[in-house]
Amino acid sequence: MSMAGGPEGASVDSWLDRVRWNADGLVPAIAQDAHTGKVLTLAWMNREALERTATTSEAHYWSRSRQALWHKGEQSGHVQTVREIRLDCDSDAILIVVEQRGGIACHTGRERCFHLKLDGGRWADVEPVLKDPKAIYGHG
Amino acid sequence: MSMAGGPEGASVDSWLDRVRWNADGLVPAIAQDAHTGKVLTLAWMNREALERTATTSEAHYWSRSRQALWHKGEQSGHVQTVREIRLDCDSDAILIVVEQRGGIACHTGRERCFHLKLDGGRWADVEPVLKDPKAIYGHG
Repeated sequence: MSMAGGPEGASVDSWLDRVRWNADGLVPAIAQDAHTGKVLTLAWMNREALERTATTSEAHYWSRSRQALWHKGEQSGHVQTVREIRLDCDSDAILIVVEQRGGIACHTGRERCFHLKLDGGRWADVEPVLKDPKAIYGHG
Repeated sequence: MSMAGGPEGASVDSWLDRVRWNADGLVPAIAQDAHTGKVLTLAWMNREALERTATTSEAHYWSRSRQALWHKGEQSGHVQTVREIRLDCDSDAILIVVEQRGGIACHTGRERCFHLKLDGGRWADVEPVLKDPKAIYGHG
């Protein structure tokens, strides 16, 4: 993943090297909506995903289920345009502030993934489905 | 960690069983400030930490460095009073909405842990230290 030699390569490497990747080479990445402040998703990035997120200003993740780089919105169109990238004090968590295209971050067709709220000892579904996933992913 | 038998025990278990704990028995937990909407911290919970968070309405985590249950604020006084607990669509991430006592969530004395912002290929420290950690932890 290292860039070719020279000053530019060294510069790119240094900020990526600051991140404490876990044993699988991943770091958790929180996406927060730039306008509403809502926490949309928690996904995972590897080094390449974070680098592409920074260079393209569109969120890229590592899909643990598909074991593949994942350009968010590549299928659904629900791209996340990145306004800010932050790292925490232990260098082991990322926060990105994004503009969520289509107003839907979740593959279930909801605004965000955190749609279950603990209420009286059960998880209540408190976020409406805004668009049928079949319509989002073209299998309808 | 299972409660004693009976209907109450079964009820407690069912919502905790819905969570997809990782191989270490942990789940990442985001804390968001109830008033400002700022993302304060990303920490980890095990089953006991999440159960105590729900029953006491104060955030509990699992400290991976100390390998111990951690009642947030037990040393610093910076307790997080929990207003909402959410689970995501894959059941493998928690979001808690909290009132942050003292206005300081980070052990470095900053309002929040995400104090490094990527700016021109380097991490800039954009959050001021509000209180000297030595004063917070009584070693000053």
